[in-house]
Amino acid sequence: MAGNITIAIIGAGAADEPTQRLAREAGRELAMRGATLVCGGLGGVMEAAARGAHEAGGQTVGILPGYDRSAANPFIKVPIVSGMGEARNVIVVATGQAVIALRGEGGTLAEIGHALKLQRPVVALAAWRQIEGLHRAQTPREAVELALTLAAGAKA
Amino acid sequence: MAGNITIAIIGAGAADEPTQRLAREAGRELAMRGATLVCGGLGGVMEAAARGAHEAGGQTVGILPGYDRSAANPFIKVPIVSGMGEARNVIVVATGQAVIALRGEGGTLAEIGHALKLQRPVVALAAWRQIEGLHRAQTPREAVELALTLAAGAKA
Amino acid sequence: MAGNITIAIIGAGAADEPTQRLAREAGRELAMRGATLVCGGLGGVMEAAARGAHEAGGQTVGILPGYDRSAANPFIKVPIVSGMGEARNVIVVATGQAVIALRGEGGTLAEIGHALKLQRPVVALAAWRQIEGLHRAQTPREAVELALTLAAGAKA
Amino acid sequence: MAGNITIAIIGAGAADEPTQRLAREAGRELAMRGATLVCGGLGGVMEAAARGAHEAGGQTVGILPGYDRSAANPFIKVPIVSGMGEARNVIVVATGQAVIALRGEGGTLAEIGHALKLQRPVVALAAWRQIEGLHRAQTPREAVELALTLAAGAKA
Repeated sequence: MAGNITIAIIGAGAADEPTQRLAREAGRELAMRGATLVCGGLGGVMEAAARGAHEAGGQTVGILPGYDRSAANPFIKVPIVSGMGEARNVIVVATGQAVIALRGEGGTLAEIGHALKLQRPVVALAAWRQIEGLHRAQTPREAVELALTLAAGAKA
Repeated sequence: MAGNITIAIIGAGAADEPTQRLAREAGRELAMRGATLVCGGLGGVMEAAARGAHEAGGQTVGILPGYDRSAANPFIKVPIVSGMGEARNVIVVATGQAVIALRGEGGTLAEIGHALKLQRPVVALAAWRQIEGLHRAQTPREAVELALTLAAGAKA
Repeated sequence: MAGNITIAIIGAGAADEPTQRLAREAGRELAMRGATLVCGGLGGVMEAAARGAHEAGGQTVGILPGYDRSAANPFIKVPIVSGMGEARNVIVVATGQAVIALRGEGGTLAEIGHALKLQRPVVALAAWRQIEGLHRAQTPREAVELALTLAAGAKA
Repeated sequence: MAGNITIAIIGAGAADEPTQRLAREAGRELAMRGATLVCGGLGGVMEAAARGAHEAGGQTVGILPGYDRSAANPFIKVPIVSGMGEARNVIVVATGQAVIALRGEGGTLAEIGHALKLQRPVVALAAWRQIEGLHRAQTPREAVELALTLAAGAKA
């Protein structure tokens, strides 16, 4: 078994409205295709993506930095309580078989770097043009379809 | 939300037959009461508990030490790919709202220690008589009922 | 090179006076033999051991759980800022080539478990009689000499 | 106390000759000013920086990803055995009070991201022009002087 196809969605913990819309839509598209969402479990892009996936009846996993499971946003069905601080970012992208990266700051940049090192394919959605080695998408739907294709390839 | 009640089952990665029977039965009892199982995702007690939970239709989460999701035993529905080595033991017990400890060795002892430090209640099932501060159960059913009661109390 | 012989001293963060005396004496004995001390960097046994090592001119390494280097006790010469929470306990015992365990609680128990799993020899000093698989010493000097002998053997 | 001023030098584990020369020179400049070097402990930029620091009589700390201290390059005086895999990158930049970033790939990018998130000042040395929020230097000496100034400011 080894579970469902799992895709990470990453981005700013304090995200602007358009970025949150993209994240929510990407979460919804993921869930509609039966994939599991993994994210950092907190606010901003993490919450918007989990909300979208939840609204479409999908599975949502949140890797929390602290020891308090109640820190998870309300759309996380499987909170993972890591206590690893920033190092939990490694777990988010390692658990994803591919990664969708929205606009973010240092934490998101760290996740992109870890994904590249761990050879998890990264799809940048309307962001991160300055970073080489990423796949590109303009819409949430395109990002999700590309991530699922790449995840299937990475497994093969 | 913050998810289902989640209970960790811990014990030897290479377990004898009676210990595996106890673990499988504990996994089954957990799932029958609607709780989620979290474990280390590999063999022995981890696999037996996940098998029991899976057979009863329950949710199973495995926190893997390496970067390879295919290392998960076949009964893990949500593999978490941590890459944290032995430190993933902290995540197992932190994610459980209570812990059921079967016979094990150094890794299990480490998990018991972390659970005590993090104030996760620990129910020892037919093992660990030498360690103070644990709750005790003689059967899987008793262990599961006690763990669920303690988890509810820890939440309150 | 790969550095000096390094010994971990572990025990309660809030230790009674006799335990602190043992820790300080063990730190001093370590330093007098030219070994490096690694510990968790905070108070109680960690501080007493670092103080003893510092007073004898030894090297002291503290693996801190948070992101604030100023949390280190004043006798730590090399603070390591891990941000890993309780998981930093794994680093303490993995960095030691042998471990001296004084009286402690859950965190110390976790470290003993990790050391056994990682095959780091553990010398219990006036404590932990209930745990199997440990070496035993009655005095700090005896503990240090045994730990150094075991560390040399573990290297060979 | 809380130790010496500590600067992280990061960059590719398999670095070209010019990048290694920059790293070695940066390590030497650091040591000549009495600062401690922290790095990832392995090859490429990590080894070149440690070599430079070692040649100038400086202190060198290497945060290793695995459990084997002999994996450290021969210029590491204080090997820290983390077993945390890629997550050890967080410890490298958290332990530095400022960071000097040379040319690198995913792992280095992850470290830059973590440093930005943890508010450790980053000085990019002849690399990483595409990343915003970094300080810039053209020579190792300039990078070291800037990093030391920034580290002092970050402490104040």
